[in-house]
Amino acid sequence: MTQSRALGVFDSGLGGLTVVRAIQELLPNEPVIYLGDTARVPYGTRSAETVLRYSRGCAQLLVERGVKALVIACNTASAVAVEMLRAELDLPVVGVIRPGAEAAVEVMEQLLRKERFEQPPRIGVLGTPGTVASGAYPRAVSQLSTRFEVVAQAAPLLVPLVEEGWLEGEVPRLAVERYVAGLMEQRARVLVLGCTHYPLLKPLISEVAEKLAGRPIPVVDGAQATARAVRQLVEEGKLARAPSPASGAGLELLVTDLPAGFSESARRFLGGSVGHVEQVDITLR
Amino acid sequence: MTQSRALGVFDSGLGGLTVVRAIQELLPNEPVIYLGDTARVPYGTRSAETVLRYSRGCAQLLVERGVKALVIACNTASAVAVEMLRAELDLPVVGVIRPGAEAAVEVMEQLLRKERFEQPPRIGVLGTPGTVASGAYPRAVSQLSTRFEVVAQAAPLLVPLVEEGWLEGEVPRLAVERYVAGLMEQRARVLVLGCTHYPLLKPLISEVAEKLAGRPIPVVDGAQATARAVRQLVEEGKLARAPSPASGAGLELLVTDLPAGFSESARRFLGGSVGHVEQVDITLR
Repeated sequence: MTQSRALGVFDSGLGGLTVVRAIQELLPNEPVIYLGDTARVPYGTRSAETVLRYSRGCAQLLVERGVKALVIACNTASAVAVEMLRAELDLPVVGVIRPGAEAAVEVMEQLLRKERFEQPPRIGVLGTPGTVASGAYPRAVSQLSTRFEVVAQAAPLLVPLVEEGWLEGEVPRLAVERYVAGLMEQRARVLVLGCTHYPLLKPLISEVAEKLAGRPIPVVDGAQATARAVRQLVEEGKLARAPSPASGAGLELLVTDLPAGFSESARRFLGGSVGHVEQVDITLR
Repeated sequence: MTQSRALGVFDSGLGGLTVVRAIQELLPNEPVIYLGDTARVPYGTRSAETVLRYSRGCAQLLVERGVKALVIACNTASAVAVEMLRAELDLPVVGVIRPGAEAAVEVMEQLLRKERFEQPPRIGVLGTPGTVASGAYPRAVSQLSTRFEVVAQAAPLLVPLVEEGWLEGEVPRLAVERYVAGLMEQRARVLVLGCTHYPLLKPLISEVAEKLAGRPIPVVDGAQATARAVRQLVEEGKLARAPSPASGAGLELLVTDLPAGFSESARRFLGGSVGHVEQVDITLR
């Protein structure tokens, strides 16, 4: 029975657990198998060719585990691999870019209904070098609406800051200022967090953006939007699992490496204990 | 003829080019094949088991290319893999930890000949989480001298800062202060740069350490010391190549990924143009 199978979610590391958390809130009945490619994280600074190869390996492992749908909970992998995986795999594939772009367009439309701007405001995207270089957000936004321009800024230091757990204080504040300042100057009035690591820096990013722009700047986190897209897919595809009397649908956590500090890092992203973790080898794919 | 073969040097990424530069200065007649595992950089945040596996793959490729000796130009890989590779390979293997520890002990001895300290000064090591967790520097120092205590600080943000090219300004200054302050409080009076990325931050680290300690703090960079160890090995092992009339012994640069900004990053580490670069695949090992 396809319906009883798990949703497969993968990311370069543990950032995608923010998406799992959102899925579990919207679809508490759905079991999830999560694969974090912690032995090769980060993807965001690698070439598109390498990210494609790594993404294919992750997807194959989840397919072998019998998942009923695939969620690419990594912006860099979504940016370069979603089309390829859709073409190659015989199951539904959801990335984080399109839902994030949809949410940004929605917020932008609300903003324009409420306020008048002298010059047209833009959508600002913070992302990894790989995501920004791919042009995936401007492309996704232009497919949804021709009204909005997108400006994007690569922010390679934010992933290591989050992994190090430096979420407040002067170092992350100055780094965020440096990345956000240019977007504000280019009239970004909505910010998209184009990397699953960044939601942990959301309070700081909001604060810095508001200070720089002199007005509140809505910050869109793709995790919620992606979870809504997954719910829609499950419902429309008749993939929903029958409610089980047992409490909790369960999360299976697979990783390719278990470095020191793993549990603490995982807890930070999932917002709770992670349970059983299995280490898998996908380098031979 | 073994002598005419190249020296094989590998690193997780491009930081090891600082070691290549030092080798080329001391041994201008020796050709070098450098392998940077840029598709899986950084090693410093991964488990020892994964670093061992990756190091073995790098070494095997260089052995297949016929190198006459192997230099592990990566602190994390040296910390966990040098013994294993020595046992497994039929050629001399030099790591960066032992030469770095020797240089630190030497500087410490000079310091104690010149000055009196109320309490015994210590050797401070800045390194990746992997290098610090391995305890390799305290072990190497204790094998050289029982006089000196070692205090080590993991500094995971320094690698991304160097890769991003943020070598001066407030963000790297505050990050360095945060990492160095504890070492100074623990009476470190010599600092070892226990990662091949850090020499690019050496001016800043020196300045911050002096400010915090209220006195100049010698900063030891393992690249020079490693190059001297390689020269000794080449001379003692009768591995020296006969001087060639052609100018320049040559550097062959192999990488596992070619991300955007690669050339600029490579130039930063090598201090000059990098010439021909070949992309190789070692993930199937």
